[in-house]
Amino acid sequence: MKRHAIAIHGGAGTITRNILTNDLELAYRGALQEAIEMGDRILAKGGNALEAVTASVALMEENELFNAGKGSVFNHEGKHEMDAAVMDGKTLMAGAVSGIRNLKHPVLLAKAIMEKSDHVLLANSGAADFAREMNLEFAPDDYFFVQHRYEQFLAARAEGHVVLDHTQPGDEKKFGTVGAVALDVHGNIAAATSTGGMTNKKWGRVGDSPIIGAGTYANNNTCAISCTGHGEYFIRSVVAYDISCLMEYKGLSLKEACDLVVMKKLVEIGGEGGLIAIDTMGNIEMPFNSEGMYRAVKHSEQDYFIGIYKD
Amino acid sequence: MKRHAIAIHGGAGTITRNILTNDLELAYRGALQEAIEMGDRILAKGGNALEAVTASVALMEENELFNAGKGSVFNHEGKHEMDAAVMDGKTLMAGAVSGIRNLKHPVLLAKAIMEKSDHVLLANSGAADFAREMNLEFAPDDYFFVQHRYEQFLAARAEGHVVLDHTQPGDEKKFGTVGAVALDVHGNIAAATSTGGMTNKKWGRVGDSPIIGAGTYANNNTCAISCTGHGEYFIRSVVAYDISCLMEYKGLSLKEACDLVVMKKLVEIGGEGGLIAIDTMGNIEMPFNSEGMYRAVKHSEQDYFIGIYKD
Repeated sequence: MKRHAIAIHGGAGTITRNILTNDLELAYRGALQEAIEMGDRILAKGGNALEAVTASVALMEENELFNAGKGSVFNHEGKHEMDAAVMDGKTLMAGAVSGIRNLKHPVLLAKAIMEKSDHVLLANSGAADFAREMNLEFAPDDYFFVQHRYEQFLAARAEGHVVLDHTQPGDEKKFGTVGAVALDVHGNIAAATSTGGMTNKKWGRVGDSPIIGAGTYANNNTCAISCTGHGEYFIRSVVAYDISCLMEYKGLSLKEACDLVVMKKLVEIGGEGGLIAIDTMGNIEMPFNSEGMYRAVKHSEQDYFIGIYKD
Repeated sequence: MKRHAIAIHGGAGTITRNILTNDLELAYRGALQEAIEMGDRILAKGGNALEAVTASVALMEENELFNAGKGSVFNHEGKHEMDAAVMDGKTLMAGAVSGIRNLKHPVLLAKAIMEKSDHVLLANSGAADFAREMNLEFAPDDYFFVQHRYEQFLAARAEGHVVLDHTQPGDEKKFGTVGAVALDVHGNIAAATSTGGMTNKKWGRVGDSPIIGAGTYANNNTCAISCTGHGEYFIRSVVAYDISCLMEYKGLSLKEACDLVVMKKLVEIGGEGGLIAIDTMGNIEMPFNSEGMYRAVKHSEQDYFIGIYKD
């Protein structure tokens, strides 16, 4: 039996022990465990990496703790505009969506775009039309309404600024993207990412999550990656593909490439955040240059690891 | 006086001598010369590369021969939805817009997003709101109406397919993006790209042009690049940043990297198109794997070169 492995993240940011209550920490740990178990079960049954990362991310999209799907932050108009992407390391096929509204599982739309259209990236109402053709599930605004997010939004709008997740004094500052990367028993890797973006975002701002090569990338020759962080820096640095190139062209290991990009190159330009990465040997890296990152790992031959803080 | 240089493209595709009439060929040559002179004049006066590429692209956006700005193809709803991007190789700052309607110069919006917002990518009606705040010039639908494009659209819609530019029998099949790359006398490079996308495109399809790292990239350490081609392949291959990484991490020359990516890697996956590239030595490459590419080059110490066909 060949080994398999999966890693997930639920966002990075200023997440410290004095910010999370015990109850909230337990809730996050429970949600991360559920999501990683979901993907791990698929992999254990011989399912492919793409199915596993999609299922784990779809489950996190249903949990209002995470800024993706239900629980997505409010944009400037008080609406939810979501982005997602998937990429298959075996075929180098990819699918992505930006600015989708009222769709329960943006990651399933990204997968459908990859599998059922000739395109990679669909946006806004046009993407919604495609989702309807695919019979994907929509939900009214109130499904996405979460009191906590709404209060963040009102505070951010009152202060007149755009925030990545929230910045109330004493509260966590979090880049609330979710993502997953996995290796299946067939030796293939895949990545998936989903996000509600920035609280009070306006002008149709799109971050790195749906940008293949920036927030999401997968290639059996190198690695599969899902990012979370200040998207503008991740786009300009083409973060995910940079790690892949450092491995392919410079011979760096997964760990060396991840450390260089996240802990040095991004830090130098002020790009806060982190990522999860896997290679076809089952090596997993989860570097982040922020205070914390919600994350979990499951190797076929090992116990779960669930982490939130730096140490 | 340090040297400067600029290259532009007006799209690649099945452009052969028996497709273009003499008059049309002359019109394209004239339009390319105007556009390259525009950028060259700015560079000759000591202007910076970003200003030069933006000005050249903005001029091409005014010419209905090119699928960008006026002359943009029609989407499935009979509207014009345009994408553009700019990147500054000195600062690694970038700006991009997707799905913008009724804006005369999408490239100027991309530049404004880079210079006047905290964001990299803005989309659709939100991007239009930002453009209005920047006092950029809008135009009614009939400004963008070009009879030739409309007939393409009707033919494509009647046949029920999406085409990259047009595929009438005996007619040119063209990926009608425009772009420019330049080196200024200060030693900085920059890239700009603008497109109307695919005729009869639906579902809010976005191509590679506004994707930093795919269709547009610039970095003083390596190169500045603007692509034109079948965008989905260019996104999945992260074409522009791949060339940059092959130079930075593998030590390839600009020519070696361009040839590898355009003439080998893209060809192997069926990714038709081409690109223009420049480095800080003023080397320029314009590889394309299609029948032709509208292109022009001007080095400070040399005459113009204007090309359309393969040889």
